[in-house]
Amino acid sequence: MKLNCDLGESYGAWKMPVENEVMEYLDQANIACGFHGGDPVTLQNAIALAKKHGVSVGAHPSYPDLQGFGRRSMAMAAEELIAAIQYQVSALSGMAAIQGVTLEYVKPHGALYNDMMKDMSIYESVLTAMRDIQTSSHAVALMIQAVPEFETYQALASQHNVPLLFEAFSDRRYTPKGRLTPRTQAGAVLDTQEAIEQANHLVSQGKVITSDGASLSLKVDSLCVHGDTPDAVSLVKCIRQLINTK
Amino acid sequence: MKLNCDLGESYGAWKMPVENEVMEYLDQANIACGFHGGDPVTLQNAIALAKKHGVSVGAHPSYPDLQGFGRRSMAMAAEELIAAIQYQVSALSGMAAIQGVTLEYVKPHGALYNDMMKDMSIYESVLTAMRDIQTSSHAVALMIQAVPEFETYQALASQHNVPLLFEAFSDRRYTPKGRLTPRTQAGAVLDTQEAIEQANHLVSQGKVITSDGASLSLKVDSLCVHGDTPDAVSLVKCIRQLINTK
Amino acid sequence: MKLNCDLGESYGAWKMPVENEVMEYLDQANIACGFHGGDPVTLQNAIALAKKHGVSVGAHPSYPDLQGFGRRSMAMAAEELIAAIQYQVSALSGMAAIQGVTLEYVKPHGALYNDMMKDMSIYESVLTAMRDIQTSSHAVALMIQAVPEFETYQALASQHNVPLLFEAFSDRRYTPKGRLTPRTQAGAVLDTQEAIEQANHLVSQGKVITSDGASLSLKVDSLCVHGDTPDAVSLVKCIRQLINTK
Amino acid sequence: MKLNCDLGESYGAWKMPVENEVMEYLDQANIACGFHGGDPVTLQNAIALAKKHGVSVGAHPSYPDLQGFGRRSMAMAAEELIAAIQYQVSALSGMAAIQGVTLEYVKPHGALYNDMMKDMSIYESVLTAMRDIQTSSHAVALMIQAVPEFETYQALASQHNVPLLFEAFSDRRYTPKGRLTPRTQAGAVLDTQEAIEQANHLVSQGKVITSDGASLSLKVDSLCVHGDTPDAVSLVKCIRQLINTK
Repeated sequence: MKLNCDLGESYGAWKMPVENEVMEYLDQANIACGFHGGDPVTLQNAIALAKKHGVSVGAHPSYPDLQGFGRRSMAMAAEELIAAIQYQVSALSGMAAIQGVTLEYVKPHGALYNDMMKDMSIYESVLTAMRDIQTSSHAVALMIQAVPEFETYQALASQHNVPLLFEAFSDRRYTPKGRLTPRTQAGAVLDTQEAIEQANHLVSQGKVITSDGASLSLKVDSLCVHGDTPDAVSLVKCIRQLINTK
Repeated sequence: MKLNCDLGESYGAWKMPVENEVMEYLDQANIACGFHGGDPVTLQNAIALAKKHGVSVGAHPSYPDLQGFGRRSMAMAAEELIAAIQYQVSALSGMAAIQGVTLEYVKPHGALYNDMMKDMSIYESVLTAMRDIQTSSHAVALMIQAVPEFETYQALASQHNVPLLFEAFSDRRYTPKGRLTPRTQAGAVLDTQEAIEQANHLVSQGKVITSDGASLSLKVDSLCVHGDTPDAVSLVKCIRQLINTK
Repeated sequence: MKLNCDLGESYGAWKMPVENEVMEYLDQANIACGFHGGDPVTLQNAIALAKKHGVSVGAHPSYPDLQGFGRRSMAMAAEELIAAIQYQVSALSGMAAIQGVTLEYVKPHGALYNDMMKDMSIYESVLTAMRDIQTSSHAVALMIQAVPEFETYQALASQHNVPLLFEAFSDRRYTPKGRLTPRTQAGAVLDTQEAIEQANHLVSQGKVITSDGASLSLKVDSLCVHGDTPDAVSLVKCIRQLINTK
Repeated sequence: MKLNCDLGESYGAWKMPVENEVMEYLDQANIACGFHGGDPVTLQNAIALAKKHGVSVGAHPSYPDLQGFGRRSMAMAAEELIAAIQYQVSALSGMAAIQGVTLEYVKPHGALYNDMMKDMSIYESVLTAMRDIQTSSHAVALMIQAVPEFETYQALASQHNVPLLFEAFSDRRYTPKGRLTPRTQAGAVLDTQEAIEQANHLVSQGKVITSDGASLSLKVDSLCVHGDTPDAVSLVKCIRQLINTK
């Protein structure tokens, strides 16, 4: 089980809080690519920090929406979306290569991530973008949400020759169907204690307790912690400990 | 002698005129990277067209200024400028690699190009950005303006391990010092007939007639035609003919 | 019956074709506000030209999406959308006031226009934005699409104290329900001859022939011509003539 | 003597620290207009907070440079700069009017502010922009830096019919010529204790001690505190106290 976090999301004078504090506890850093955050200097620094701590670098592409931080769905044509993903992944991948770092995976950001999990035509656009960036020497994985019906996603990814990584969320409440409770509903975001328990359950048994109290098995490769919660740093440290001592 | 033109500068609904008409007559296409023009789909199409016609692909990075089309100097810190160039070159290089096309060179755009030729500290930032993207298997050249004092530029480029390409302009009047007459001065831009004569002089003898009537030798690898003049297409065809029949 | 067109949509070096050629034939100019096109100098010039020809000035606000020219739906929160509309209308209104021109109306652009006509919650956000900019001395109208069920839109607008203007399209084919045939369907855009006939029908009888051959009455205050068709200028002149000789 | 601070500079998900904490202690809030920070919702909230605390609202326009937070000089043509200022002031002024708040003054931001104080042609462009927004019923002042040679600035402003406000900086060290020591030099930024002393000196005597130990008189209408220093809130409270008890 790995631990991942979204980083490199500062932009010019605007700094995201925990950016530099959590890196050393991670296995995988999802680094912004400039479309929802991440100016070129920020990307450069985030890659350098990941390299310093031996953390795998992933690209974190987004809809082109700085003002909305990539959190608003945009009705992009498939052709536009594919090109936008490839542009961002290329930019980050090249910036990483300059530092001798190889891009390991891609994890879509915000609304693009949610849309990909809800709409198979968008998921297929993401896969098409990913298919074209596979090289003979090096496969780049796509990180998506761990869901009960993961085999549907797996089958389509295989057709596009794209390896998948599945991630679960420690700090969000799961619905009975194994999806995330929308943030607009009460109790959607777990408190630190609940999040640690959920992480523990996932690390030790590969299961979550859903909102109706049932236990649900999920195939999970990595746990995600959101960096924009006040306790993010201590939560990250805690989960790091959990994984290490498993 | 090669022939180059700036392309891929459309942006969304805004189309640059000659974009698709001149490609087949070129040796080298300087393709925008998104900071002054060139949305991801436009880049993708420009690369595909260059590939179709066997035209070398160069990256055409800019100051981050869509509204000003990269034509306004911006006082960027060296660190910011280096990262901005590497981001753009990475994006274009990766987009080209997806289509099996190798990036051959980089030519800064607009105000960045002019500033680089006037201010050696900016030239050095460009070289630093370029130095880091050289790979063991493949050198990426920097295209700059052919000037009488080219050896000064060459010496600094060699220190940074960056090969240079020198370009001259067919459609701009040269000062006695071998620089371009500013566009704000009368007669700065040549008419089609004058441009063809200047191109002919450059192709056949490697010389230009400067504004005071003198003949000046320039070390030139490539001729540039600006795409935003009404006669650009016929001028490009004409110069193509000149070079072919040399 | 008035004649309106979307103008002021150039951006920096990118120029929209007919911008300056059609103004003199219009009654109403919908001027871009910077979010999908229209840099400050372009706005200034468009306002000046409208003033010169005695054309009414309307604001043409959009989703914040330069790259997509405001043609892609964005899932903005109501609060965000309202503030974005007010920002854009304020900018254009103030720029007009500087030239002694009073803003007459607001017409949402592109995807925002379509979304407003399809989703009553978005329509209500637009009305809320408009309600707040009404002043005691001067009412600012909202221009929306003329549809058979116009009274539903009228009722909600009255609640918000916003006067409405209804526009019809000369160059688009109408469905039996009085909506526009999506551009993705064959025959959605009329050719010049068909457009002139439809305009004539609207001007003389206030009716359109829908795609099933039926005649449909529409309450119409203004006819819109899209500026981005090749024959836009001659179509505008033709419709001007039709209206004048009615 | 008034107290002013730059506010409304958050952008989407990126929040500027002290934004909401200092407002109640101010006389004047310089509110960003969207070009270096300040999305429409942020502007709306900043105006509402200023209104709540009875704080005068000023527009804080900038070069169009989100990535550089308006801190990088841009070589804009006079026509572009004038239109860019008028666009931003119009947007903020209209957003304020919606809440029943009248725009009192304009203070250029960052590099534009510095350039205006160094280059009289840029200062004149700012004045030209300001001249056109004066209305018969209401004058809008321009806030500039208090300098020994203020009469030069005053004379030009009078020609353009623009009233001036002069501000001094509590937290920056003054050169013997009464200008700010560049941030690149050691000791340019005062510590909290020094800043309070300088503010006290300005409030009680209208003088600063320059870097060579001399005492220099300045005509000052308002004191500025920068919001991006860690102690900004306590410094603001302290200076508020100083002014109140004068």
